[in-house]
Amino acid sequence: MTRRVKIAVVGTGRMGSVHVRNIVKQIPEADLVAVCDIRLEVAQAVADELGIQRVVKDYHELLANPEIEAILIASSTDTHAFIMKDVAAAGKHIFCEKPLALELDKIDEALEAVDTAGVKLQVGFNRRFDKSFQKVREIVSSGEIGRPCILHITSRDPEVPPMEFMRVSGGMFLDMTIHDFDMARFQVGEIEEVYAIGGVLIEPELNEFGDLDTNIVTLKFANGAVGAIDNSRKAVYGYDQRLEVFCANGTALAENETENTTVKGNPDGFHSSRVPHFFMNRYAPCYVEEVRQFLECVRDDKPTPINGQDGRAAVVLGYAAWKSFHENRPVKVSEIG
Amino acid sequence: MTRRVKIAVVGTGRMGSVHVRNIVKQIPEADLVAVCDIRLEVAQAVADELGIQRVVKDYHELLANPEIEAILIASSTDTHAFIMKDVAAAGKHIFCEKPLALELDKIDEALEAVDTAGVKLQVGFNRRFDKSFQKVREIVSSGEIGRPCILHITSRDPEVPPMEFMRVSGGMFLDMTIHDFDMARFQVGEIEEVYAIGGVLIEPELNEFGDLDTNIVTLKFANGAVGAIDNSRKAVYGYDQRLEVFCANGTALAENETENTTVKGNPDGFHSSRVPHFFMNRYAPCYVEEVRQFLECVRDDKPTPINGQDGRAAVVLGYAAWKSFHENRPVKVSEIG
Amino acid sequence: MTRRVKIAVVGTGRMGSVHVRNIVKQIPEADLVAVCDIRLEVAQAVADELGIQRVVKDYHELLANPEIEAILIASSTDTHAFIMKDVAAAGKHIFCEKPLALELDKIDEALEAVDTAGVKLQVGFNRRFDKSFQKVREIVSSGEIGRPCILHITSRDPEVPPMEFMRVSGGMFLDMTIHDFDMARFQVGEIEEVYAIGGVLIEPELNEFGDLDTNIVTLKFANGAVGAIDNSRKAVYGYDQRLEVFCANGTALAENETENTTVKGNPDGFHSSRVPHFFMNRYAPCYVEEVRQFLECVRDDKPTPINGQDGRAAVVLGYAAWKSFHENRPVKVSEIG
Amino acid sequence: MTRRVKIAVVGTGRMGSVHVRNIVKQIPEADLVAVCDIRLEVAQAVADELGIQRVVKDYHELLANPEIEAILIASSTDTHAFIMKDVAAAGKHIFCEKPLALELDKIDEALEAVDTAGVKLQVGFNRRFDKSFQKVREIVSSGEIGRPCILHITSRDPEVPPMEFMRVSGGMFLDMTIHDFDMARFQVGEIEEVYAIGGVLIEPELNEFGDLDTNIVTLKFANGAVGAIDNSRKAVYGYDQRLEVFCANGTALAENETENTTVKGNPDGFHSSRVPHFFMNRYAPCYVEEVRQFLECVRDDKPTPINGQDGRAAVVLGYAAWKSFHENRPVKVSEIG
Repeated sequence: MTRRVKIAVVGTGRMGSVHVRNIVKQIPEADLVAVCDIRLEVAQAVADELGIQRVVKDYHELLANPEIEAILIASSTDTHAFIMKDVAAAGKHIFCEKPLALELDKIDEALEAVDTAGVKLQVGFNRRFDKSFQKVREIVSSGEIGRPCILHITSRDPEVPPMEFMRVSGGMFLDMTIHDFDMARFQVGEIEEVYAIGGVLIEPELNEFGDLDTNIVTLKFANGAVGAIDNSRKAVYGYDQRLEVFCANGTALAENETENTTVKGNPDGFHSSRVPHFFMNRYAPCYVEEVRQFLECVRDDKPTPINGQDGRAAVVLGYAAWKSFHENRPVKVSEIG
Repeated sequence: MTRRVKIAVVGTGRMGSVHVRNIVKQIPEADLVAVCDIRLEVAQAVADELGIQRVVKDYHELLANPEIEAILIASSTDTHAFIMKDVAAAGKHIFCEKPLALELDKIDEALEAVDTAGVKLQVGFNRRFDKSFQKVREIVSSGEIGRPCILHITSRDPEVPPMEFMRVSGGMFLDMTIHDFDMARFQVGEIEEVYAIGGVLIEPELNEFGDLDTNIVTLKFANGAVGAIDNSRKAVYGYDQRLEVFCANGTALAENETENTTVKGNPDGFHSSRVPHFFMNRYAPCYVEEVRQFLECVRDDKPTPINGQDGRAAVVLGYAAWKSFHENRPVKVSEIG
Repeated sequence: MTRRVKIAVVGTGRMGSVHVRNIVKQIPEADLVAVCDIRLEVAQAVADELGIQRVVKDYHELLANPEIEAILIASSTDTHAFIMKDVAAAGKHIFCEKPLALELDKIDEALEAVDTAGVKLQVGFNRRFDKSFQKVREIVSSGEIGRPCILHITSRDPEVPPMEFMRVSGGMFLDMTIHDFDMARFQVGEIEEVYAIGGVLIEPELNEFGDLDTNIVTLKFANGAVGAIDNSRKAVYGYDQRLEVFCANGTALAENETENTTVKGNPDGFHSSRVPHFFMNRYAPCYVEEVRQFLECVRDDKPTPINGQDGRAAVVLGYAAWKSFHENRPVKVSEIG
Repeated sequence: MTRRVKIAVVGTGRMGSVHVRNIVKQIPEADLVAVCDIRLEVAQAVADELGIQRVVKDYHELLANPEIEAILIASSTDTHAFIMKDVAAAGKHIFCEKPLALELDKIDEALEAVDTAGVKLQVGFNRRFDKSFQKVREIVSSGEIGRPCILHITSRDPEVPPMEFMRVSGGMFLDMTIHDFDMARFQVGEIEEVYAIGGVLIEPELNEFGDLDTNIVTLKFANGAVGAIDNSRKAVYGYDQRLEVFCANGTALAENETENTTVKGNPDGFHSSRVPHFFMNRYAPCYVEEVRQFLECVRDDKPTPINGQDGRAAVVLGYAAWKSFHENRPVKVSEIG
């Protein structure tokens, strides 16, 4: 059997605890040596449940440990950048949840630290590991259906997140559309210009802090293709995640998954299940696969599939969308930086 | 049995001959008394095939005939407006193919003539009569799934039309997207602003006269909803006609029809049929139903389901899209007129 | 244009009037010269509606007319055989609705008369002309997915027919499964043995005369394949018509058609339309195509696609199924004759 | 947290190792204290991989251990019955893979021992835990679509198993259809009579020992419903697992799952993925859930969802099917015992 990579997880909240569980249960490539959370009792509970030996409150303790090769950062967004800098300086490889940060200068400093240290960095855009989206990309990138012409992404959450999260999230383009920006880049390539429209059609409370619950963002790609993303914070039938890449000689699209394959027929017609409720269900295998691949890259010294520039680009696109929305005009990505 | 309405058809080319055949074979509400085409032999051939008694070259001959109650205009676009004026002046009801004209002033003159004469006018936006699109509208307008938030229309032709047609068609937004603008209004309501992007990704010859083969147009509706239309001139798998109206408490969407329901399974997976090749197949029942309903409106003196303002609005939106595309900025519909 | 075949229709009830209408409106290959019904007023009404010149009460009047080349027989089942004999003796080609008769000796006499006269005979197994079932057959008979192994036909009516019809219909295997027996032969080939089970699970009144509302018939084909047909008299979601031919290297199946392609999503999941209500909707194009092809065969002197032996074989299978059901044992087709 | 049940696994071959892995990784309700295999090195390898402390060669060693509450038996079929007797005598609860045995007298002895000891027994009919089949059952058993009339199960393996397995498996009705017999009982209830047809259409080597690769079995249920199961050893497009319960007021059916939701459109039509390759993929969550529920029943002293009589009934049906096939007649289940 091949070597197992020693890894620690910083931040054991919602997303972090999923990673911890996945690493322990489903990623034989990993050896999870420690978990860390500033709320020590949260980390301890996860560690107890899963039989993890070491629990720390301060991530600096991990940095001094020479046997730890990699750190998975799943703490709150505002801490990502400085932790990354420290981890990079300690010479450890980094898997960091998205977004890298909400401030571009912080991202740039962190990426510079990563470059300087020569460590690997992978950003947690989990959807790239979805088997259906990967199959779309495989079909498109093979060239068999010609050049991409139109991208359409439908990406709708099942319910409005808690207002306390929304108030600090960066807003819809930075907390939600950011995933779709990354997916658009993954499927079709670099984006040069965006135009964003939207409104508050579902949850009036969002008006208090200028956020949206509904939007459409159009995209101009460097290769001439065009695209549209549509987002809603509330799809009552479940987590709606579809995309299509229409090409010159065909099309490739990913339909929604379903909760089950049962169909009921009655005098009203036919009735089938909702789509999986939310990202934890729909993308469960992706959270495993992204970390597994990261560990492979560390172990075999290969470039990570989603690097720091990918993480930065999605944030830039989020800002471009906000600028476009506020000024009601197309915004070149180069205007943001 | 109820009274049959006496009607004549002006223009017996591609679209006109379809109407003639439908009226004779499938619309018992009609009594087709004459056909007219400036290419007399074309009209004669259609008349011979279908046993129509009267064939004329000049539509003025029809106007003098007091027994004719209604005229269906399916001649070339540049003749629609002046024929409408003459027909209205003669006191006959009008079914006119889309677009009413490519010039707004001509449309306005024709509509004024119609108003003055007090005759009925219906515009040939056939897609409004599609059973699946009607079902979407029925669901949405019932209010059962809440207010409309996002409209998405995918509308792609199976092949690039002949270049001679393209050179005089008014371009992609006026010959193709115009149907989608009307559908958007039918499903969600008035549009206040559009933004259009696109390119020539498939047929380079279009560059010669500044037309497009690929576009996306985003829409802001008066009721706050947003929308996106995507168009291509060439979907190699058939005539792709889908739409979705996503609402606050659900969604309603119309999938493509299929050529047949047969599925083949083999080691590569499952394989099913293309979508119907083009509008003549996909919308065949709509061409019958639109004329049948028009004749009912004439017979029972009811307002037509698609009036002159609907016909005008779609042309205005086409110009707004062109302006938006050329100036790369959102354009208010009110800028056009 | 090619020659039009002069045809007359005997029997203008439910099925006959559909054929008359189709011939007049949709089959340019035909010249319908007369209609006939012992209820003269029924024939007259149809003729008036469609502008047919000649109306007779007694089909013998048609036989004497030398210009009539073909007769479509859509009168009641008990009259098919003797009319066929007379029409054959008059040297005219025959399209006869199914079943040819409910008595095998009558069928044999009629087929002998057809043979002796050397006229063409086509039996009205409309489903063979369904585009999806034809596509299945095309895939299977091409050999690309290997030899047929398992046939499954699901064939369920939307509602129990009127009891007065049921009492004289020959019962479920002869009025309903007969179509599926023919389809089984069309798709996979000759059937050697059947076994039938079933019951009265929906409509207790059927017990009065020993009919069924639910059945399954298994089939052994001469080529070694096996099959199962399942039937119900009452599928509340519409006319359920599906089949699958599973083969050694793949499968080919025909799904149901749908009333429309609209899907509604709400918190309960997704909801789509019923299947078309009954045979007149689902198989409307087949009723046109079967007669069109018959007329082509007459005009071009080709063998008809469904001949007298096909018509006889389905009745034999119906009797074999009844025998099997009553004796609760597999019955060889050769036991019936 | 609730008490974890101490369990040991006997037999760590293909199926057994899956259970071991599931128990360790995914069933927090369990405390796996030992694994056992007569091939000690096989058990040791699994134990090493998963960090299991105790490994034994002879299952009797486990019986003496008072802390072990339950034993999962996944050894070869011919050992199930005597191990069950010993385990029951030791007062431990039993989860036993299907079939309980291939000889009814051995099954009866084992079930008697279970009864005498008063221990719980669950049989490994994994498919009952499939979410889609459970949803079908939920719809049907709720009564909302009326009484069951027709059951149809399509169950086809993707490839012929190794001949060495086939020679001792009991043959198609006992190694393959047995699952469908259990599913039929789960969905509709007790079966009174079966009739089986089939043949060797794919793998001629099966003729050497009288097995089949293709079959259809019809079922008469005690409640009057009828059913058909169709099986093939080789569906080249994957593991085909579908069922429908057609009822008096509607239908409930479970479609296949798919490997991904990606669809490719090209000039030939639309192309989608195979179905999951085999039971390990398709039913992966069921193998977890069946053991989890068993442990809950042990912990909370509840009756198991699939008891010894269920395990016996499926074997009886397998023998009835073989008898029916060999004698080519319907066979009452009561003829077998």
